[in-house]
Amino acid sequence: MSTEKCYSQGSAAPGPVPKDRLRLYSMRFCPFAQRTRLVLNAKGIKYDTINIHLKNKPDWFLEKNPLGLVPTLETPAGEVIYESPITCEYLDEVYPDKKLLPASPYAKAQQKMMLEYFSKVTPYFYKIQVGRRNGEDVSKLEAELKEKFAKLNEDLVKKKSKYFGGDTITMIDYMMWPFFERLEVVELHHLLDDTPELKKWTECMFEDPAVKSVLHSVDTHRGFNKGYLAGTPNFDYGL
Amino acid sequence: MSTEKCYSQGSAAPGPVPKDRLRLYSMRFCPFAQRTRLVLNAKGIKYDTINIHLKNKPDWFLEKNPLGLVPTLETPAGEVIYESPITCEYLDEVYPDKKLLPASPYAKAQQKMMLEYFSKVTPYFYKIQVGRRNGEDVSKLEAELKEKFAKLNEDLVKKKSKYFGGDTITMIDYMMWPFFERLEVVELHHLLDDTPELKKWTECMFEDPAVKSVLHSVDTHRGFNKGYLAGTPNFDYGL
Repeated sequence: MSTEKCYSQGSAAPGPVPKDRLRLYSMRFCPFAQRTRLVLNAKGIKYDTINIHLKNKPDWFLEKNPLGLVPTLETPAGEVIYESPITCEYLDEVYPDKKLLPASPYAKAQQKMMLEYFSKVTPYFYKIQVGRRNGEDVSKLEAELKEKFAKLNEDLVKKKSKYFGGDTITMIDYMMWPFFERLEVVELHHLLDDTPELKKWTECMFEDPAVKSVLHSVDTHRGFNKGYLAGTPNFDYGL
Repeated sequence: MSTEKCYSQGSAAPGPVPKDRLRLYSMRFCPFAQRTRLVLNAKGIKYDTINIHLKNKPDWFLEKNPLGLVPTLETPAGEVIYESPITCEYLDEVYPDKKLLPASPYAKAQQKMMLEYFSKVTPYFYKIQVGRRNGEDVSKLEAELKEKFAKLNEDLVKKKSKYFGGDTITMIDYMMWPFFERLEVVELHHLLDDTPELKKWTECMFEDPAVKSVLHSVDTHRGFNKGYLAGTPNFDYGL
């Protein structure tokens, strides 16, 4: 089971990773760590979670990963893997049950190109929130994000599929999901009004068991987000 | 064979990709496209090259890849793949001869983490050049880049290997190489003085047949680079 409360500078180090499972260094509200949690849960992989206080990281964590990033995976053999897409691909290769990436090299490349595209979308969620906090006009940023959503919508229309990789959930859906889970929290859900296929996709995603397993309520997200934007995140918010 | 001179707005479109080969849309001096060329040549894959005038792209190229990026691969089936690491991984999966990525998921993840690290190194080469052109003090940037080189050197020392993936060239070496080929051109080769293992690596790389097959002389690089930094690149320089 996961030790929910976060470990910070001075917290005793957890013991070695038990032989029959993986360890995930995470933060309960991190959208990137959520990607890895979604994949771990979707594939039914056994793992422990060690949540990290990202403003006050324990030394033993920085020894394992000097970059201090979450998500970081650790195996019983002491192998350390980080960067969310790298952790997810690693998991999909090592645990062949419920493959999330397509077997065809071209279909796999398509998912990676889409993820690359999406990596230019994710900064908007942050920029818009920070802009609003600072009382700036974010209408241009919102319009740009809306255009990106339109492109995603068009992709679903072209593919005539429920999900981005076909009629079942695949890796790319889990990679994008964490940002859509927070759309209402960051008051951007109105952007979906003109992209009905993308909206339908979010509705389907909300029903997925892995998505449900790591979902926070809008209120909990809001509570964390408030402190986060103020520069005083409470990583244990809601516990 | 490659039609060396670049295609620009108004150039007649090349015919369809012949059945027995791939097509690479490239630019002769692009370090990212060079990655894909290195992999194509190292693996002995048959391909045509269509060089693109990156300041004046043909419409038929933008129809194939609306992002207008090189490298872009096209298959006889009309599949289009871009982003240099994605093209290289695709090639390594589809053409199993002379595998460049390790088979072990962890070793593969290590190469990807290293490439992610290196993606934060590459902007320095450009920033330092632009800074110098503008008469700015770039000593801080140079010191930072030197630190990054020290980390790469340390990695080789720790691994006790000639190359970054072991005693033979693997994918990660080809991904990093194009930037080291240009070290003398951009007058940064003195940064290798304190990193003897990294320097030895560059010397070994210069001897590799694939590296040699796409190598430009320092003078040719310099000639192109001058126009590039002035905002008037001659993509056909030296032809």
